[in-house]
Order: sequence, then C-alpha cells, then structure tokens
Amino acid sequence: MTTNTRIVLASRPTGEPQPANFRLEQATIPVTGPGQVLLRNLYLSLDPYMRGRMNAGRSYVPPIAIDGVMDGGTVSQVVESQHPDWHAGDLVLAHGGWQTHALVEGSQLRRRLDPATAPLTTALGVYGMPGFTAYAGLREIGKPQPGETVVVAAAAGPVGATVGQIARLQGARVVGIAGGPDKVAWLRDELGFDAAIDHRAPDFAEQLRAAAPGGIDVYFENVGGKVFDAVLPLLNDFARVPVCGVVAHYNATALPEGPDRVPWLLTLVLQRRITLRGFIQSDFMHLYPEFVREMGAWLRDGRMRYREDFVDGLENAPQGLIGMLRGDNFGKRIVRIAAPA
Amino acid sequence: MTTNTRIVLASRPTGEPQPANFRLEQATIPVTGPGQVLLRNLYLSLDPYMRGRMNAGRSYVPPIAIDGVMDGGTVSQVVESQHPDWHAGDLVLAHGGWQTHALVEGSQLRRRLDPATAPLTTALGVYGMPGFTAYAGLREIGKPQPGETVVVAAAAGPVGATVGQIARLQGARVVGIAGGPDKVAWLRDELGFDAAIDHRAPDFAEQLRAAAPGGIDVYFENVGGKVFDAVLPLLNDFARVPVCGVVAHYNATALPEGPDRVPWLLTLVLQRRITLRGFIQSDFMHLYPEFVREMGAWLRDGRMRYREDFVDGLENAPQGLIGMLRGDNFGKRIVRIAAPA
Repeated sequence: MTTNTRIVLASRPTGEPQPANFRLEQATIPVTGPGQVLLRNLYLSLDPYMRGRMNAGRSYVPPIAIDGVMDGGTVSQVVESQHPDWHAGDLVLAHGGWQTHALVEGSQLRRRLDPATAPLTTALGVYGMPGFTAYAGLREIGKPQPGETVVVAAAAGPVGATVGQIARLQGARVVGIAGGPDKVAWLRDELGFDAAIDHRAPDFAEQLRAAAPGGIDVYFENVGGKVFDAVLPLLNDFARVPVCGVVAHYNATALPEGPDRVPWLLTLVLQRRITLRGFIQSDFMHLYPEFVREMGAWLRDGRMRYREDFVDGLENAPQGLIGMLRGDNFGKRIVRIAAPA
Repeated sequence: MTTNTRIVLASRPTGEPQPANFRLEQATIPVTGPGQVLLRNLYLSLDPYMRGRMNAGRSYVPPIAIDGVMDGGTVSQVVESQHPDWHAGDLVLAHGGWQTHALVEGSQLRRRLDPATAPLTTALGVYGMPGFTAYAGLREIGKPQPGETVVVAAAAGPVGATVGQIARLQGARVVGIAGGPDKVAWLRDELGFDAAIDHRAPDFAEQLRAAAPGGIDVYFENVGGKVFDAVLPLLNDFARVPVCGVVAHYNATALPEGPDRVPWLLTLVLQRRITLRGFIQSDFMHLYPEFVREMGAWLRDGRMRYREDFVDGLENAPQGLIGMLRGDNFGKRIVRIAAPA
C-alpha cells in the first residue's frame, strides 16, 4: 500500500454542498521526518463545523484551501513514528483529515486510545470533541441547577444527547428536540429525557411551551432557526444560552425576510437578564482531563448512552456530510475508512 | 403645607410619550403609621427605564397603573418618622416618586446622605443607581483588562460617563459615543477619553472603526440601534457585551424593516465567542458596599467627574423625561423639586 487516497475541496459551495464540491484523488504516501508520525486513518468524524471550513471567510480558523484535503478528526493507527511518545501500532485520536493516511507532528497528537476503556469510535463522539463540547458548555456557561429546565436541540446528535444526559445526572429536567418520531422515541424511551419533541410537528412551538410549563433556564443552542425562535419567548429570568452551533444557518445564502428582530432579541436579553455566549470546546481545555475521567466513568457504569451512525468507505464521506447537514443522521456520524491492523 | 402635589400616569403612550400622558394633581399628605416615614422630596431622578414602566407589559417589575404616581428615585428629607432608624431632618436616598411628598416604609429606605461626603444630587447619578450600573456591569460582565478597548454609548450620560472613567482607571483604552459636538468635546477634553465620536456624523461607522483599530473587547450597551450595528462587526474574539439598556428602542412601536439579522447575530456570537448578557444593577447588590467605598474615594480625590442637567420644578418633569429619551440631556437629568429645610 503506497497510495494515499484523499478527498479534497474542489470548489466552494453556495448553499448546500454538492458532490461536485469534493474530489477524490490519489497521492503518494508521505515520508516521516524528525518528530513526525505517519498514521493510517481508521475512522473519520463528520461534524457540522466542516461546512464553515468550506467557505472562503474565516470562521474560527482559516478556511480549507481549494484543492486542500478536507479537515477532520480521526481515530488512527501509527504506521511509523519518529517521535518518542508514539510507536507503530498505537491507536490514537488525531486530526487526520479525509484521507487514508496522514503525516502529523507527534507533538500534536491528542491522546492514545485503549479499546478496553471505551470503544474506539467513542473518541469521535461522546468521549471526544462532541461530548466535550456538551460537558464544557454546561460546566462553564449553562450551569444547570437541580430542578431547572434544560432544553437542547439536535438532541439525537452526539452533542445534544450528551448535553441532555449530563443535565439529567445533575438533577435538571430535560426537554430534547429532534427531527422525526424515531429520534424522539429514543430520547424519551432510551435516554430517559423528561420530554422529547419533534420540531417538524406543525404545533412544535405549542408542544415546547407545554413541555416547559415553568419556562426554560438553560437552552443549549446548536441549531438556531425556528427552534431558537420557539425557545426565546420561554426563557426565564437569568437564563443561560451556550451557543456552540447554528446548523440551521450553515447552508444559508441570505438572511431571512424581515422584520429585523435584533432589537427584540436585545430587549429580551435585557429584561430577562439572559446570558448568550458563544464558545468552542477548545476554549475550555483546562477541563479536558476532568472530562476524560468523569465521562469514562459514566460510560463504564452505563449512565451515559450514545448512538453511532456509520457511513462505509471514505468515498462516501461527501454524501455523509451533505446528509448530516440536512439532519438525516441518527447519532454520531462516522466514516469507516479501514479496520485496525 | 398640607398638599401633596404629584404627577400620575394619565394614559399609556404609543411611541414617544406626550405631555397628555401625564397629569399633575393635588392630594392630601398621607399620615404616617407604625414603621413608616414621611418624606419631602428634594430632587427627582429621571431615567430611561421609566419609559418601560409606562407600558402595559411587564418589564422587570409590574407597570405603573393608570392614575398611579410616576415612579422614581429621589433625594428626600424626613419630615416625620415612626421608624427607629430615621429622624426628622435626615437626608436620604429614597424611591419617592414624582411628587412633593412620599410615605414610605422605613425599612425600604436605601441610605442616609451626608452632603459633606458628596453633593446630595450625586446620589441620583454617579454615586447612585446609574453609577452603580456602570460599576457592577464592568465588574461582573465587562471585566476590562489593561490595554483592552472599551466602547461605551450614551457616553455623556451618567452611566456611560462613569463606565468610561472606571474603564480608564483600570487601564483600558476608552472610546465614547455621544450625540453632538459639545458632548464629544467634553468626553475627550474633560473626561480624558482616548477617543470620542458623534453618532450623528454621516461617517459614524467609519470613525468608530478608525478609533478602534485593534477591535473592541468590551461594549457597554445602553442604547441599541445603529450604534450596536456599528459596534458588532468590530467585536474581538471573547468580547463581552453587558446590556443595561436599549434606549433607541424604548419608543419604538414596531420592529425595523428586514432582513431579519438574528441569524447573523447568533453566528457572530458563536464564531467570536462573544458574551451578550443583560443585567440590572439590583442583580449585583453584593457589590454595593464596595461601590459606595470605592466611588466615594474616586469622587473625593477628583478621579471621577460627572455632569448634571437640571430641570426646575416638578411640573416640568414630563417634558424633562420626553426630552431625555430624545437625548437632549447633557449629563444626569435631575428635577429640582424643593430646597432642603
């Protein structure tokens, strides 16, 4: 095996990404230099933030260049190492990208994975970046108190499902919002959410109001759009709104029609003393060791549950991302690239 | 003197208040009961929040009833007391309302005033609620660091002028925004702001950008409207926006035309990890003793300056409030009702 199969950004999408925005190509497997590690990628994480990286504008980090390899977190295996901390055969959490092989600096590898502790793929979901997003956003911004009502959107996704379960462990009342009856049933019957609502229902806003009779104290925002609109009037005094995503707007090419509701939002923020705060998980890395310990325990004793949604083959990653942005995933979407050696 | 002259809410305004929304009337001076104190009001504070109290809807507290006395903070003198803490002749900070006399519970009186410590009227401005709003909002939310850029709107008003001066004392670079050349000159020449900008200038947004070449770290929001619109694109990563008022919207009867920029605001909050947080000063009463001590010292040693803008006679309070909502005050607007005995 001397070829690196990879998917690059062929062109920038306008609105919803199309298959033609991606290109599958073959390249030579790179050679390790001092301090470097060559990885074989086993699993690739698909995440909503990737849509932002495809745009020309800066989001958190510079965009992916045209003809550049698509970015992404991976579970990978070390093929060859010139870094003292890593050895051939090691299983690691990496930022390997949309390709079969990746050359990385050993100093940038995140953590060694032990399949005996937790299934490898959880390092891309509940026990990785999405799970840590949930953990850190609740710890630093949401701060749910026992008896408070927490609402989370995209609740069948890896961030939302984790938010809801952590909030319940902390004694809060949790209302999950998801798209479709199967996801809603899973939240209620499997995860034990206090209520779950289908945002596709024509009376969604009324259902939400009925499910939060005492108002909403924490809204974990990862979608925006009509869910945000339905939540906002229900927020209580001193409500906290951690904002880690606005998926509903990622493919938008123009703002919605008016009126301009910014003054209404500001007035509500003022009158109810609401905190609206954007974050990304890497802002809170000081909490990471605690997350690894606490989440590891929750996973081992079965208090934390999760769902994974697999796409087979690197070549199907583009369709996997396009579909996920429409909400067709049910659980953490992961691309299976190869089996461990 | 047996008559209480008072101004009541005659009708609820639509848009800008009109003189006909107020009614001056005479009533009998009430008699004190156990625990109560009869006050003669000397100075009445006019504040933007009063516009909200005139509406039917709940803001922080229930609205003023039709035919009810207009609400407001006062510097008052005790005429008669049946409460052990207060004695005839005492000068006090009270919530006496728009009237010559007020009957209050002694337990609700806020603090005794000593004209030797600071001029009495400062208890309604820099050394009272507006000053404390500035102090608490910076302490709890804005948290300016040395070298950071702080922008404050309505900077010639009692909150804004105090925000700017405290931020400078803490080593921040301060840009003030005000309406008209005299206010701008005062901010720059008298208060020592690093820059001051007239929001009426046609190239206001460009001037603001030039005055904040490194972006904005703290925006103390008390007006909303076009100032907010000009500030938002300039906010840095991790910017903090304490929201204590949106005066530009208080008289609005409808939302502005579209597009709806809420998705744009949410996206910016996310990408730059902005904190937008509403508050009122009474949320932070634990800081009040510290404020009294620290602000008292700043006033005594001349590091804190302020301006007052007097209206003579209770009968002119309605016009004083109407004009203030248009921005025609220059400094803290206070109605002189009577001289101390």
